[in-house]
Amino acid sequence: MRKTYLLTPGPTPLPPQVCEALARPIIHHRTPQFQAILKEAVEGLKYVFQTKSDVFILSSSGTGAMEAAVANLLSPGDTAITVEGGKFGERWTELCYAYSVHTEIIKVEWSRAVKAEEIKAKLKATKAKVVFTTLCETSTGVTTDIKSIAEAVKNSEAVLVVDAISGLGVIDLKTDEWAADVVVSGSQKGLMLPPGLGFISISQKAWKLIDTARSPRYYFDLRAAKKAWAQADTPFTTPVSLVVALNAALKMLKEEGLENVFTRCRKMAEAVRAAASALGLKLYADASCASEAITAINVPFGLDGEKLVKTMRDIYGVTIAGGQAELKGKVFRIASMGYLNEFDIILALSCLEKVLYQMGYKFELGAGVRAAQEVFLK
Amino acid sequence: MRKTYLLTPGPTPLPPQVCEALARPIIHHRTPQFQAILKEAVEGLKYVFQTKSDVFILSSSGTGAMEAAVANLLSPGDTAITVEGGKFGERWTELCYAYSVHTEIIKVEWSRAVKAEEIKAKLKATKAKVVFTTLCETSTGVTTDIKSIAEAVKNSEAVLVVDAISGLGVIDLKTDEWAADVVVSGSQKGLMLPPGLGFISISQKAWKLIDTARSPRYYFDLRAAKKAWAQADTPFTTPVSLVVALNAALKMLKEEGLENVFTRCRKMAEAVRAAASALGLKLYADASCASEAITAINVPFGLDGEKLVKTMRDIYGVTIAGGQAELKGKVFRIASMGYLNEFDIILALSCLEKVLYQMGYKFELGAGVRAAQEVFLK
Repeated sequence: MRKTYLLTPGPTPLPPQVCEALARPIIHHRTPQFQAILKEAVEGLKYVFQTKSDVFILSSSGTGAMEAAVANLLSPGDTAITVEGGKFGERWTELCYAYSVHTEIIKVEWSRAVKAEEIKAKLKATKAKVVFTTLCETSTGVTTDIKSIAEAVKNSEAVLVVDAISGLGVIDLKTDEWAADVVVSGSQKGLMLPPGLGFISISQKAWKLIDTARSPRYYFDLRAAKKAWAQADTPFTTPVSLVVALNAALKMLKEEGLENVFTRCRKMAEAVRAAASALGLKLYADASCASEAITAINVPFGLDGEKLVKTMRDIYGVTIAGGQAELKGKVFRIASMGYLNEFDIILALSCLEKVLYQMGYKFELGAGVRAAQEVFLK
Repeated sequence: MRKTYLLTPGPTPLPPQVCEALARPIIHHRTPQFQAILKEAVEGLKYVFQTKSDVFILSSSGTGAMEAAVANLLSPGDTAITVEGGKFGERWTELCYAYSVHTEIIKVEWSRAVKAEEIKAKLKATKAKVVFTTLCETSTGVTTDIKSIAEAVKNSEAVLVVDAISGLGVIDLKTDEWAADVVVSGSQKGLMLPPGLGFISISQKAWKLIDTARSPRYYFDLRAAKKAWAQADTPFTTPVSLVVALNAALKMLKEEGLENVFTRCRKMAEAVRAAASALGLKLYADASCASEAITAINVPFGLDGEKLVKTMRDIYGVTIAGGQAELKGKVFRIASMGYLNEFDIILALSCLEKVLYQMGYKFELGAGVRAAQEVFLK
């Protein structure tokens, strides 16, 4: 019997309620029936985004929502601050480059998070209109302290943009309370859906930039999205089935309660870290900024990291993630987001131990699993 | 008991095979398992596109694929020819405008199709790099003769782009044989899927423009798509579930055979037209260019067209489409594409007759249904 388990940082496993919703007969998107579904979805997203501002659903992956932020907020020749502490931080720079936006790049060691003081200093030294940040850097397992950064940006002219693609619905992000002007996300992480939906929230401060920006945009034009939303509509055909399934997922998140979701994910990440230590493995991210959504673990010296991941997946059916970009083969990553609970983490750790054992790595069998159990018992 | 029937020009009804595929547990997109699925999808799309050129799957609606065409082929200040014979032809102009591309617009009466000679004359008079056309104008039910237009464009410097969003897998479009350089489409029409996937095919001639174009693009950058595809990958996370379901739909299209699909749709459209005539209703599109994918029927004088569509949908569960843009309230539209067969058309016509009767329109009950039956018996 082959059974499979998914512990990657997106897509995350689909709850049966979501699978069921995806399989329903489709309805037309320009009907009162679908308008009611869309309204429910946007209301639910506002709960997860912790905002009363506008939230839009895009037919795109998370990167499409990132492009929407860049194309709508900035004009060619404008200056923006980007933070490069991993593959997804670099994506902001690449997007700015594509739109002829000058970037003031803050380079951060990949295992660490940017500090609010660094943003503050860069803001003082430049005329940046936008600061681009990453809540959870999926490639490294580092969480950035958005609260303190928002504090630093709030009183400047600049607009704060947060890539919360792998963080939303996993790590606390108080969009309105902290003043995160623009938050972008995607469907296949904390929201427990297949990929295919992008989300973006927009504060009043951000709208002012959007109304004057001159970058070309049509498909991702948020002015058109706002206009359509006034009629409970979208400017272009929306992925109906995914929106129906989104409501099923949002219902689950509401029933559990956001605070409980955050605690569940935090505990799962803590368990993975405890297990890694018990197995003598080193964590990639600095302890001060270890993510609650995903943990990157260094491949032990002498072991083939890609083989480790492939064996877990292809022989035992347990899919975790390898390293991306410059971390390829150097780390493996275990997710603690979405439709996962403590026992999923235990099973993944036991598979990890099995494969480490077979690859000749020396450790006490069961030590990792036991360390995780202890965390969950606390 | 409330039962619903969908006869709109996208989304079209989902076959059970597609629903089942959508409901499957999700897998990670960067695995050999998914790469095999993606390769199968692209091969199947090449069959439906009737091309050996590159075909890419985008995480977007059809309009995203349209934007990909504009942003990748053109630079600010370039000239393009657009054909405005309906809402979707106008979209090409709007997209060009957003990207600062000068447009030479050919205005066509909405009930008629552009002629190859008009394109030829415009090509002679301008330095257009691209000619944008629409295979099936969903808003009017007009099909354009792409074959003769391609013949006219082939020997020029210009690249021919065809919006086949509602035409692909419904109306014959011999991409390679006719030399349609760029064909864009979406998932929710002839391909029988939920919305959420955009498709685009690119000829060698088109690649030359793409490699030199200077419009900003990142999410829709086809150079990145090509590079990723060399590794059987996509640049950004692809809507895994929709791609899995795409293979289920492509399998059905292959089993039926493209020619048979075209014949089925053509017959359904013919039946709708015959029924309309038998009911004394006038067709919106000129007979010379009536679409095989969708039929727009004029609302009879004195009748409330929006009420007709709403009654069919909200009282009887049969969803057809009303008019869009300037045709709002003036026409209603019945699709003949996707997962529909003759008996779906019969039931929709019988519902149409029922509501027309209740609204006081004078006709012989059963005449429309019978006329359609006669077409299907031929």
